[in-house]
Amino acid sequence: MISDDLIIFLKKPPYGKIELSSNTIPLNSVKYLAPATPTKIILCGLNYIDHALELKMKPPQEPVIFLKPPSALIANQQNILHPAGVKRLDYEAELAVVIRKKAKNIKPREVNKFILGYTCLNDVTARDIQKKDGQWTRAKSFDTFCPVGPWCETSLDPSDLRIRSYLNGKLMQDSRTNNFIFPVDFLVSFISKIMTLYPGDVISTGTPKGVSKMKPKDRIEINIQGIGSLVNNVL
Amino acid sequence: MISDDLIIFLKKPPYGKIELSSNTIPLNSVKYLAPATPTKIILCGLNYIDHALELKMKPPQEPVIFLKPPSALIANQQNILHPAGVKRLDYEAELAVVIRKKAKNIKPREVNKFILGYTCLNDVTARDIQKKDGQWTRAKSFDTFCPVGPWCETSLDPSDLRIRSYLNGKLMQDSRTNNFIFPVDFLVSFISKIMTLYPGDVISTGTPKGVSKMKPKDRIEINIQGIGSLVNNVL
Repeated sequence: MISDDLIIFLKKPPYGKIELSSNTIPLNSVKYLAPATPTKIILCGLNYIDHALELKMKPPQEPVIFLKPPSALIANQQNILHPAGVKRLDYEAELAVVIRKKAKNIKPREVNKFILGYTCLNDVTARDIQKKDGQWTRAKSFDTFCPVGPWCETSLDPSDLRIRSYLNGKLMQDSRTNNFIFPVDFLVSFISKIMTLYPGDVISTGTPKGVSKMKPKDRIEINIQGIGSLVNNVL
Repeated sequence: MISDDLIIFLKKPPYGKIELSSNTIPLNSVKYLAPATPTKIILCGLNYIDHALELKMKPPQEPVIFLKPPSALIANQQNILHPAGVKRLDYEAELAVVIRKKAKNIKPREVNKFILGYTCLNDVTARDIQKKDGQWTRAKSFDTFCPVGPWCETSLDPSDLRIRSYLNGKLMQDSRTNNFIFPVDFLVSFISKIMTLYPGDVISTGTPKGVSKMKPKDRIEINIQGIGSLVNNVL
């Protein structure tokens, strides 16, 4: 995606052959959909060295993973709903991988051919509930707590991309994916040894330092180099 | 399900009208399928008073929930795979609820009409990984770690059912659902306030005392009064 216009793709028979059309429509007239329909959304805890240093934590030996339910998924420009009773609602900017085909027990060097592409993900978290529960699931599973988008970028090397978040236009997170403790190929391989991955499944890679809270009417933007911006307002 | 024969149901037009047939086939000639195709599987931590007493823990104020991925689901008589490197593999007998229709923000007294029925669930857990990670997700998400079945019992009051597990025929867990800290109506209502529930979603209600480990070639049976037995072998 390189312009302000959306390129229309045409599906020509036989099924599966896709051609670019000369037709375009303005991006700002488009209603976005989430760029994947996952059977599961797997996220990784602490995975940026800068974030580990900020928290004065030793980098983990192995990834700590958790799940968000598909019911939490929203698209670019949809609203994040602030649940009643939640006292602190945080954003977390993340690079996410979309799986292309069924993967089980794959090696890191094989991972590339199982990946459809990359997108931005906001790991919205009710921080107060996360601390209270100990387990992270409830705090991260409310409806609308998984904005993903704006689209799936299919031609991208994920190894050294700038990743930023802006809260109401103010830069809050600014890091690079070369700070990953567990790079994409390791992480996808690691998860595929636990659970079979299916087309459309989403794997998110953790957030860098600079996490903070959002309140109703805030606008949160996640921007990743080579992908674009995922923008959501808090209701 | 009240005999050793499977009753064949006939779907008659108009779509949705189901009638009993006079044909039956022997249950032992049947290959079972999981009795639900969930978009998510939600489980509850500590929920039996006897288990809390055994662990010398105070009953929790609110349910602690976690998710298993749908890829972990297996049916009655399918095998539980013991992952390489897992040092302690535990069974956990649980009563599970199958959701009938979309539910969001429902009250406890409304819960019944959103429930299709009840089944047995084995919350298979790699206990060593659970302790190591702190978060429970990896330990409970391996392929085959969510046996569910043998079927979905649609006419059942869940409030006081005997629940047992047998390891190689030896009684290991024996409790009643009237030991629930959070009964089914409260639990389903509580979860529906976090995430929208969809038809086929599965909610599991925690395990009573008596959890222990399984090894390859073991046979684990979960039996719940009014439902029947979920039986799986460990490979």
